[in-house]
Amino acid sequence: MPSAYDQMWEKLNLDLEAHEGLLAVLGKFYGDIYMSQQGRLKGMEYLDFVLSEVHGLRIKELQDAKASGKKVVGTFCVFVPEEIVLAAGAVQVGLCAGAEIGKAEAEKVLPRNTCALIKSFVGFKLAKLCPFIESCDLIVGETTCDGKKKAYEIFAEYSPVYVMEIPQMKAACDRELWKSEVGRFKSTVEELTGNKIAAGDLRDSIHLVNERRRVLQRLNRLRAAVPVPISGRDALLINQISFYDDPVRFTAKISELCDELEQRVKSGAGIAPDGTARLMLSGCPMAVPNWKLPYIIESSRAVVVGEESCIGTRNTRDLVQEGSATLDDMIDAIVDRYMRIDCACFTPNTERLDNIVNMARELGVKGVIHYALSFCQPYSMEAYKVEKALSAAGIPMLAIETDYSMEDVEQLKTRVEAFVEMTR
Amino acid sequence: MPSAYDQMWEKLNLDLEAHEGLLAVLGKFYGDIYMSQQGRLKGMEYLDFVLSEVHGLRIKELQDAKASGKKVVGTFCVFVPEEIVLAAGAVQVGLCAGAEIGKAEAEKVLPRNTCALIKSFVGFKLAKLCPFIESCDLIVGETTCDGKKKAYEIFAEYSPVYVMEIPQMKAACDRELWKSEVGRFKSTVEELTGNKIAAGDLRDSIHLVNERRRVLQRLNRLRAAVPVPISGRDALLINQISFYDDPVRFTAKISELCDELEQRVKSGAGIAPDGTARLMLSGCPMAVPNWKLPYIIESSRAVVVGEESCIGTRNTRDLVQEGSATLDDMIDAIVDRYMRIDCACFTPNTERLDNIVNMARELGVKGVIHYALSFCQPYSMEAYKVEKALSAAGIPMLAIETDYSMEDVEQLKTRVEAFVEMTR
Repeated sequence: MPSAYDQMWEKLNLDLEAHEGLLAVLGKFYGDIYMSQQGRLKGMEYLDFVLSEVHGLRIKELQDAKASGKKVVGTFCVFVPEEIVLAAGAVQVGLCAGAEIGKAEAEKVLPRNTCALIKSFVGFKLAKLCPFIESCDLIVGETTCDGKKKAYEIFAEYSPVYVMEIPQMKAACDRELWKSEVGRFKSTVEELTGNKIAAGDLRDSIHLVNERRRVLQRLNRLRAAVPVPISGRDALLINQISFYDDPVRFTAKISELCDELEQRVKSGAGIAPDGTARLMLSGCPMAVPNWKLPYIIESSRAVVVGEESCIGTRNTRDLVQEGSATLDDMIDAIVDRYMRIDCACFTPNTERLDNIVNMARELGVKGVIHYALSFCQPYSMEAYKVEKALSAAGIPMLAIETDYSMEDVEQLKTRVEAFVEMTR
Repeated sequence: MPSAYDQMWEKLNLDLEAHEGLLAVLGKFYGDIYMSQQGRLKGMEYLDFVLSEVHGLRIKELQDAKASGKKVVGTFCVFVPEEIVLAAGAVQVGLCAGAEIGKAEAEKVLPRNTCALIKSFVGFKLAKLCPFIESCDLIVGETTCDGKKKAYEIFAEYSPVYVMEIPQMKAACDRELWKSEVGRFKSTVEELTGNKIAAGDLRDSIHLVNERRRVLQRLNRLRAAVPVPISGRDALLINQISFYDDPVRFTAKISELCDELEQRVKSGAGIAPDGTARLMLSGCPMAVPNWKLPYIIESSRAVVVGEESCIGTRNTRDLVQEGSATLDDMIDAIVDRYMRIDCACFTPNTERLDNIVNMARELGVKGVIHYALSFCQPYSMEAYKVEKALSAAGIPMLAIETDYSMEDVEQLKTRVEAFVEMTR
């Protein structure tokens, strides 16, 4: 079916036929997983709309921004300081991808033993399926894992790539390296945009990004209620869209949704029947449209009440301290905030173990499902430590390794159901 | 069969029965691969002896050193500056392992999708098979790859582990971080040994380690001769043993072997029949007893004339600059030398591409076999760039991914034979 956006997609050099196929599959998948839910919040209509226009209206907005002279910066990781991009008047969008469609193309340049997320973004590029990638003036990678670090070198043959170095420990020399990298990034963004970042710009953008984190923190607090007032799928979608949507509009819309949620919590209404097991997810990020595991869990007499992941609390837990008077102090505040990220790229990464146990206790979950993408060594290896920490706290854990294919759905469902049964 | 070393191994808490099995298999494997060769240098007898006593006499020497108050430091990576360990009067030994025997134990704590080298050293520890690990007062890991970085966290539950952070780029801030890490390592080694490193000690150890590198450089130059005067297997063994043996004795013995080799080169004698294809290996290190691929290649009308790997030129190409007057200057020289390592952990890593092409040209090879351990993301992903660089230079490349199992030997042999045929 021809779309009103065909001309735009054609200009972005997408493979129109394959792209139409992608949107059709995505629409069907979304319908099955999302529109089938009962008792959804009215506020979710906005998210449904944004998702339905993810390659349409949102791309049109990016193109309009570009036409007005703005630059678009794409990222794959919560380590890239959005505050700096926004302060320079640019737009930042997340490029992590959760679909398998470009896999065959990706495997022409990447080993088969590469995680699905990396294959997905490389595949989207090579198969000409992602209007976000094609809208970017700069794509910012980072060194959080071997797979991405080396994939960016290949990706750079196709797109304008800049890579930030992320330290692997948290000593003083690591903070120095990271501060130097933040400074290098600031210069790069200033050069890209032609805008020198002033203290006032950065103060505003720090506040703006913090406001989005605050509203997501509020969402997380409301989700902790018993009975749970929103499905894990819907909460995940909100977190996913936070990486793509205009931050001011998104924050306002989610604030309204939280008002509605608050009413629901006050009224004692929930979305799951009594006896539904409260579980938490922990591990790798789930990028759009990777809703496989939450859907399996929530079809197994359980509900997800929290996501300890980059598309989850790892992105929202810490704020940049506000109130700094000078640009230098603001940069220091940014440096400090991002150094607190508890990514498995750090060694050791005991903060993450503490954060998971605390989160599981605060949310009153019956168990944790640890999710690692196959071939994601940092998270799949850290699962061993997570299980030990949770076990010491008396909280059972199920470790799952999977990818974006649907081949293992039945097998995963059997394992999840057995785990849910066990937690009763 | 009881060994004269049983008592020593028992004191080291080895699993004697399993260890006896390991030595029997190792002896058989060595016999098949090494002792079957024709026209070996007389100097190889020393290497045969050292290998036959790898868990015997060499361990006895380490135990004697410990009894005299010396400390033993184990390492897994060419980034650990041996100069500092030796200057503090300690002994350094390489712990990388090339056998599959402890795999089942390792997979109890590591994901199956972990490279064979990591599974091997973890397995050796858990299965109580490695007298080197058990002799160590400190085991030094590093952050060169996700797999090792996270495995050390688990390994630290069983052995005294210290981890050095390796930067991922080569800018000024990376050198600063690395210098800070070298300083932290020096303090750690001084504390371990109780010996404060003086300028004279470090000057001597820099010279000593350089001397070992120089003799291995000489070996590499002699191997470049046509016809090739030494098998790739024998040269690999020499490089492997350089990580275990006493450095002074080793250098003297390899110097004698090079004298013999020089005579052979002068006389125009070679070890392979006319028409044998000259090939080069590039990629992951091959730790003892991982001789699988060189043996396959050298049973396929080809000979290996160089190894671009950590157990190869990556460990010997660069010297620490000598002649510094002060301790600080010597540390700077060490920092600079190790920053030149062209490990795939760096991004970008174009030096490696240049080094490979130069080496292939200098050695006059017909082709390069790129060897990556399965699940080693840095090297398996960089293979794409290596192939491009070699292709631009008109040199064919065969990319192989394998592990320590023997299951794929016939399949590899077929691929290698086809590649050798193609290079003619």
